[in-house]
Amino acid sequence: MESRNIRLAVIPGDGIGTEVVAEGLKVLEAVGTKIEPTHYDLGAARYHRTGETLPDAVLEELRGYDAILLGAVGDPSVPPGILERDLLLRLRFEFDHYVNLRPVKLFPGVATPLADTPAENIDMIVVREGTEGLYAGTGGAMRRGTPHEIATQESLNTAYGVERVVRYAFEKATTRPRKKLTLVHKTNVLTFAGDLWQRTVNRLAAEYPDVTTDYCHIDAASMFFVTQPERFDVVVTDNLFGDIITDLGAAIAGGIGLAASGNINPERSAPSMFEPVHGSAPDIAGQGKADPTATILSVAMLLDHLGLHAEAAKVEQAVADDILERLTGWAGRTTHEIGDDITARVSG
Amino acid sequence: MESRNIRLAVIPGDGIGTEVVAEGLKVLEAVGTKIEPTHYDLGAARYHRTGETLPDAVLEELRGYDAILLGAVGDPSVPPGILERDLLLRLRFEFDHYVNLRPVKLFPGVATPLADTPAENIDMIVVREGTEGLYAGTGGAMRRGTPHEIATQESLNTAYGVERVVRYAFEKATTRPRKKLTLVHKTNVLTFAGDLWQRTVNRLAAEYPDVTTDYCHIDAASMFFVTQPERFDVVVTDNLFGDIITDLGAAIAGGIGLAASGNINPERSAPSMFEPVHGSAPDIAGQGKADPTATILSVAMLLDHLGLHAEAAKVEQAVADDILERLTGWAGRTTHEIGDDITARVSG
Ligand SMILES: CC(C)[C@H](C(=O)O)[C@@H](O)C(=O)O
Ligand SMILES: CC(C)[C@H](C(=O)O)[C@@H](O)C(=O)O
Repeated sequence: MESRNIRLAVIPGDGIGTEVVAEGLKVLEAVGTKIEPTHYDLGAARYHRTGETLPDAVLEELRGYDAILLGAVGDPSVPPGILERDLLLRLRFEFDHYVNLRPVKLFPGVATPLADTPAENIDMIVVREGTEGLYAGTGGAMRRGTPHEIATQESLNTAYGVERVVRYAFEKATTRPRKKLTLVHKTNVLTFAGDLWQRTVNRLAAEYPDVTTDYCHIDAASMFFVTQPERFDVVVTDNLFGDIITDLGAAIAGGIGLAASGNINPERSAPSMFEPVHGSAPDIAGQGKADPTATILSVAMLLDHLGLHAEAAKVEQAVADDILERLTGWAGRTTHEIGDDITARVSG
Repeated sequence: MESRNIRLAVIPGDGIGTEVVAEGLKVLEAVGTKIEPTHYDLGAARYHRTGETLPDAVLEELRGYDAILLGAVGDPSVPPGILERDLLLRLRFEFDHYVNLRPVKLFPGVATPLADTPAENIDMIVVREGTEGLYAGTGGAMRRGTPHEIATQESLNTAYGVERVVRYAFEKATTRPRKKLTLVHKTNVLTFAGDLWQRTVNRLAAEYPDVTTDYCHIDAASMFFVTQPERFDVVVTDNLFGDIITDLGAAIAGGIGLAASGNINPERSAPSMFEPVHGSAPDIAGQGKADPTATILSVAMLLDHLGLHAEAAKVEQAVADDILERLTGWAGRTTHEIGDDITARVSG
């Protein structure tokens, strides 16, 4: 990497977001990087204070960073969709985070809720499209509030948008021992979009003869995540299906407290953004109950993305060791304590 | 019921559909009803022979029946979507099956893939909307096959369509001990449709003061199905989310071999249609490997719908007994053998 300091924008956000991000930053500092964090107070509090979600000037400022670390956004005091659409999704769209990378891997020592499933059977990576589909936000309502209301939502899929994320998934599959790529969609009902996705996978498959490709409907995939997770290696899917199966993936891999994600701009034309899969969890916010591990693992993905591979590996190893230790000594550590324990390991 | 014979249209369909429907009919006959079945050879074979999926004349004929029993449609030899859209979904739409009723209940003796989950924790009923949403089939593609292709899908939601299914779900909730109704949607992203669904639930809640209502995003719901299925009693959701979570529900309740469903027209302006949740499973078709239990439980739902409550209860009890026996003696019975065993129980 460059010798100048790496500039990191930090958006703790709402609820437990602020608590887990604090621990992520502690680990980042302890692992010894030249990363210089700047905090942005975006989220529910700012929205209530000023009515702003993501002012254009802040968006442009954020564009200048090398990466973004985000906690979580969303609060029951704000109508559903406002912070999600105007802050989180706007960042994903404006910074062209077309790859939403979400590993689903069971760490040794973590209990999966699935009976009789050996740890090695849960080891996949979901490549979720991040800038299209039903997340485009198009649609509308007519005669709202009357018995004649209609409300629509539109899924927008482009050859450009689908090809680039499918290509990324193929590349990812070539780096994995099993080299298997599964498209998850609903081609038998969403025939227009499904046809585009399936044709794109078929066409690119010719360029990647080492990769085995496969198809699974989203309904069947949800079932197989529970009954035969070993079917999956790299999964590529659209924005909404990816949202659903990565929460399901988090569940089978030991819970949302461990699920990390990267919103990646592979061309680096804008900063990539790293965040835990979990939300702001207002019900447990401020109580020190949140597990910061998902954020710390997101920090490892961030380090990796910035080319700091040794540091990334160190953080991941520290998490793995910490998790193994939970087997013997876990007894309700607080957010801080988990952060401290992992920090001690990376400093050691 | 009327004293005339009950007229049943039977559409075995494709793959294992024919095998499981045969067992369903055996049970229906043995339980002693005045049901007179007529077979319709709709599905892949007819499509290949004549190019027809569901001729208008056949549709009109089917309209005259008291109910329909369907096996499964879909075959890899037919492009995705043709049989699904033009046969299965057309039936659901033309006959206004706006309630797709899918119980998710763990029978005693069935192993759930979830560790440490007592059987009584898995006992819900999903009320899936059946005639709107992304299943409307609207959308299209432009510049297909070029780098400039765009493909769209549209979710159509009407006050009329949402209110009637939500009302059905509230009514269903009043009949259950826990009287809890959970709306599953993605209101923070699908803001137009989500707003209509949420407002409808809120408005009807005032008419059902005994029912507790609750909301859960589809991604979180997928996680909770695995980690805390006891959260759910009656779930109401749109067509696509319902498709996904009922397969997941089938998985947690012991597998797709046991999952029954009813496509209900509550006003009885057209015949309701009963079918197993599973598909045509071409990979195991013709081998006698399919479990007909899901179809037999769908037959029980059919009997119930026709007012033959005693017969319905008898079939359900026979299935419950058969399942319990699997604990001691199950050793790869064939489709026929399971059908025979359950038939013997209802005749006894
Ligand atoms: C908060 C919400 C908009 C978001 C999404 O749907 O993408 C979240 O569920 C996620 O998975 O990151
Ligand atoms: C075959 C398919 C069109 C159908 C659906 O998506 O509704 C099936 O998955 C189901 O759940 O009945």
